[in-house]
Amino acid sequence: MSRVYNFAAGPAMLPQEVLRAAAEEMLDYEGTGMSVLEMSHRSDSYQKIISSAEEDLRQLLKLPDNYYVLFLQGGATMQFSMVPMNFMSGGTADYIITGVWSQKAFDEAKKYGDVRIAASSKDRNFCYIPDCRRLVFRDNANYIHICENNTIYGTKYYELPDTDGKPLIADMSSCFLSEPIPIERYAMIYSGAQKNAGPAGVVIVVIRKDMLERDVMPGTPSMLQYKNHAENNSMFNTPPTYSIYICGKVLNWLKVNGGLIQARCRNMSKAKLLYDFLDGSQLFRGTADHNARSLMNITFVLPSQRLEEKFLDEAEKAGLLNLKGHRLAGGLRASIYNAMPLAGVEKLVDFMDCFEKNNF
Amino acid sequence: MSRVYNFAAGPAMLPQEVLRAAAEEMLDYEGTGMSVLEMSHRSDSYQKIISSAEEDLRQLLKLPDNYYVLFLQGGATMQFSMVPMNFMSGGTADYIITGVWSQKAFDEAKKYGDVRIAASSKDRNFCYIPDCRRLVFRDNANYIHICENNTIYGTKYYELPDTDGKPLIADMSSCFLSEPIPIERYAMIYSGAQKNAGPAGVVIVVIRKDMLERDVMPGTPSMLQYKNHAENNSMFNTPPTYSIYICGKVLNWLKVNGGLIQARCRNMSKAKLLYDFLDGSQLFRGTADHNARSLMNITFVLPSQRLEEKFLDEAEKAGLLNLKGHRLAGGLRASIYNAMPLAGVEKLVDFMDCFEKNNF
Repeated sequence: MSRVYNFAAGPAMLPQEVLRAAAEEMLDYEGTGMSVLEMSHRSDSYQKIISSAEEDLRQLLKLPDNYYVLFLQGGATMQFSMVPMNFMSGGTADYIITGVWSQKAFDEAKKYGDVRIAASSKDRNFCYIPDCRRLVFRDNANYIHICENNTIYGTKYYELPDTDGKPLIADMSSCFLSEPIPIERYAMIYSGAQKNAGPAGVVIVVIRKDMLERDVMPGTPSMLQYKNHAENNSMFNTPPTYSIYICGKVLNWLKVNGGLIQARCRNMSKAKLLYDFLDGSQLFRGTADHNARSLMNITFVLPSQRLEEKFLDEAEKAGLLNLKGHRLAGGLRASIYNAMPLAGVEKLVDFMDCFEKNNF
Repeated sequence: MSRVYNFAAGPAMLPQEVLRAAAEEMLDYEGTGMSVLEMSHRSDSYQKIISSAEEDLRQLLKLPDNYYVLFLQGGATMQFSMVPMNFMSGGTADYIITGVWSQKAFDEAKKYGDVRIAASSKDRNFCYIPDCRRLVFRDNANYIHICENNTIYGTKYYELPDTDGKPLIADMSSCFLSEPIPIERYAMIYSGAQKNAGPAGVVIVVIRKDMLERDVMPGTPSMLQYKNHAENNSMFNTPPTYSIYICGKVLNWLKVNGGLIQARCRNMSKAKLLYDFLDGSQLFRGTADHNARSLMNITFVLPSQRLEEKFLDEAEKAGLLNLKGHRLAGGLRASIYNAMPLAGVEKLVDFMDCFEKNNF
């Protein structure tokens, strides 16, 4: 079997150890005589799986007791609605727009109250993060929403906005678990799992308990009320059991590999290798401002679309897949999440180096 | 490896062939060099997976072109909100209550309009289905909602209500794909996959196209609008890719094993074996009325709780798992979905026969 290096923005690579264990356990999970795919979510075996996943996540994030961990469905997109429905209650909220996803979150929130754009980096096609020191939020803002890593444009926040006590809510889908975070600065973070934490079909929400004291909007579906999920330990209805099981394996893999401090080390090494190459290249050019460069999604361009197509074509033949940029940003993109090994980035940089020599 | 017979109400058994193929493909799906867990939902390989799943479902249900097939998230519980938000528009709808799930659907719908109970079997603890020939629905009902098979109480509809042209919407979670259905009589059916169609984390919705011409309620989240999913072929956002892949394998397994006509034959044989035993037993007693007996969930009791506990204990030791009834109904229950082999039911009946001889 020849495994490829998959640079897709998500769903994305998973650790081989995780896949191997999943394959081995497919017909008989730990002597239960059944697959996790078949297992009742109310069974003792499954309760252990979901509890361990939560416990490992708590350790990785050094999560204080006043935060819930929820495993939900619907992806980050469902969160774009749930956040305002649960926390704005027809009031106000401020959003920082740093790309397509934060814009979508903002557009959805408009349905539920008075939302305002506190800052935006749209003027330069989202290649930077607005200076957070200068931001002023409305006193009555029920929360401040950011998208911490911008998958499409390859940027991330290096400094969080000072919200002056107002709850900060971050979409972390594409940087979740890539490095340690000061969790106490957030009222809530959420992340579609299919980039750094597992497969598609589960979104992980970490939420400060006091946030659930707020009144939800009238007409909010029961399934969209965080409180219902928190009170039922993510079992308000049948959860996406297998996706959570795979997340659990990924979380454990992160833990035994040195936690988030070591994850950051590995991710910085990988990103530095690629950014250093880009900075020294005469042909390739990184598109994000240096002080906002993502560790996870690295965006770059070639001088012509013809060359980019040639690059993608030859890369694919070399086993380097899904390097095409998002259709809204164009260009090229290498998503190098936790499970992308250093060897994959080394192979990519070697390939880019060769490509430059042959095409410059 | 010793596989057990798992009589859980869902998540439930899957065909062994499906699990074996999934294990084999876990690290490299058809030479792509990656797992389906890692695969971009926009890739050609994945597009083939989801299209084949839809095509097989269309063949199994003999689905006319004027129906969409959608693969969504949030389970049947999310449908309890989506149905009224998309189709009632603040108007009216009539519900038939035949158990806990239809009651939950009704309670949720109250948030969105004027809903009425057209009939209920609560008076005898949901052990029967109301006589559908006598039902009268409101002229202005935007739809009629039923739960076609009642997992907890072991009943099913043998005759559909005559809705006089008003859209009939059925929660089919626990009888989906168990036998052929007259699909043209329904405006929509929905089913959490984790009983007959695959793993938890995906709900399959089949919906007549004209239903999407209705105005959704103001404030309906984008993720909860069927139209958005229909227009994007279930890719309005990242779908639960792996769960859909497993569903695809189950659908194909059904197809190559004679489709729904053969599924009904197998299911009737299995159910008959168990019901015949119950009818002849001096110790066990079936709880559902004869003319409403489910083919999927067979509910029964023993004369005392002590005996039931003894039964469960000994059954588990014999590799017959999860025979406990739902906590709201008490007693015992054998869920024998499509993937439960006849041999499993035979073993159960033999075991019950022995148990009776030893305890009567």
